[in-house]
Amino acid sequence: MGIHRTLEFILEIDKLKDVERKTLNYHGGRLERSGEHSWHLATAVSAFLPYAKQRNEIDLLKATKMALLHDIVEIDAGDTIIYNVTTEVNEAELAAADRIFGLLPENSRSEFLELWHEFEALRSPEAIYVKSLDRFLPLYSNIRSEGHSWREHNITYEQVLKINKERIQAGVPELWDIVSEKLAELVAKGKLKRETEDA
Amino acid sequence: MGIHRTLEFILEIDKLKDVERKTLNYHGGRLERSGEHSWHLATAVSAFLPYAKQRNEIDLLKATKMALLHDIVEIDAGDTIIYNVTTEVNEAELAAADRIFGLLPENSRSEFLELWHEFEALRSPEAIYVKSLDRFLPLYSNIRSEGHSWREHNITYEQVLKINKERIQAGVPELWDIVSEKLAELVAKGKLKRETEDA
Repeated sequence: MGIHRTLEFILEIDKLKDVERKTLNYHGGRLERSGEHSWHLATAVSAFLPYAKQRNEIDLLKATKMALLHDIVEIDAGDTIIYNVTTEVNEAELAAADRIFGLLPENSRSEFLELWHEFEALRSPEAIYVKSLDRFLPLYSNIRSEGHSWREHNITYEQVLKINKERIQAGVPELWDIVSEKLAELVAKGKLKRETEDA
Repeated sequence: MGIHRTLEFILEIDKLKDVERKTLNYHGGRLERSGEHSWHLATAVSAFLPYAKQRNEIDLLKATKMALLHDIVEIDAGDTIIYNVTTEVNEAELAAADRIFGLLPENSRSEFLELWHEFEALRSPEAIYVKSLDRFLPLYSNIRSEGHSWREHNITYEQVLKINKERIQAGVPELWDIVSEKLAELVAKGKLKRETEDA
């Protein structure tokens, strides 16, 4: 019966609750985990919709499902800092998507798998919007902790801009305005180093 | 600007990641937290829809938002075991809903608050469906752990039926069929005691 397969999937994805990310929670000073991050992101997707650049083209249900499912592959592939994504990671994630979504009965499997691929490829207004918030939330955590994971992983101001600016602006431009000021402050305070300082 | 208030809300609800629940995760043997539970529930809401009793009347976006928001009041009121809900808890939760959703700008505040009230009062097909899964997930955790939180809180078979059976059947009847067999097994194995044993 299909419902037994769905239950198998729900049981399996429970493991995402124990995948550690590289960034701190906003409160409590511990590393965030991917399950709770996915909840935070999906809730942000509803809350920030009025400020989305393409809000009139966004199907909110689709965007919300994307947020709920976007990190599920980390159960097999682990969390990778966005500054360090390689081809190998992508292959591990593709295999994970096939295995994990493959647990589902056909009525959900193809839909969920397609949502995951669409998000990865950024090939819809929903994907662009969700990605924007998926970049914003950890960036904001780093701003609050004055660069905890940037220091840990030796990330420069230039890398932060390169990885985040365009992506965040494409989804919710005002959120970039809010963080860009704070990034400049962190540089001024010596909490986020510039590339030229390495030279 | 409204977006600053939305950001304040997203910052505040991050605290839900550290609210401990009474049940174990399905894997890992640690207590679940309310943030990750809300993700698991919201994802289950999408996955089990084909098996919902009132699936033709359910607005899936509304049900998903309900799942994402349903536990937010626990930031102030804490998690209460369902076998022990009192009027006092309800008052603390009402005040928490006003405070936390009150952080939002008007465009989201009334919608989110209304979803929370609708869920609490079980006054829509979406609320009945989400509540059914909200009861099923911890029940299934207890079945996997052979009654971890039931033993901890001295819960009997009769209480488990009273609190869960009708609610789960109202949303996803087949899920009740799956668990009811397993409950009988736990009673037979002496892992879940019957009320008559106390007499």
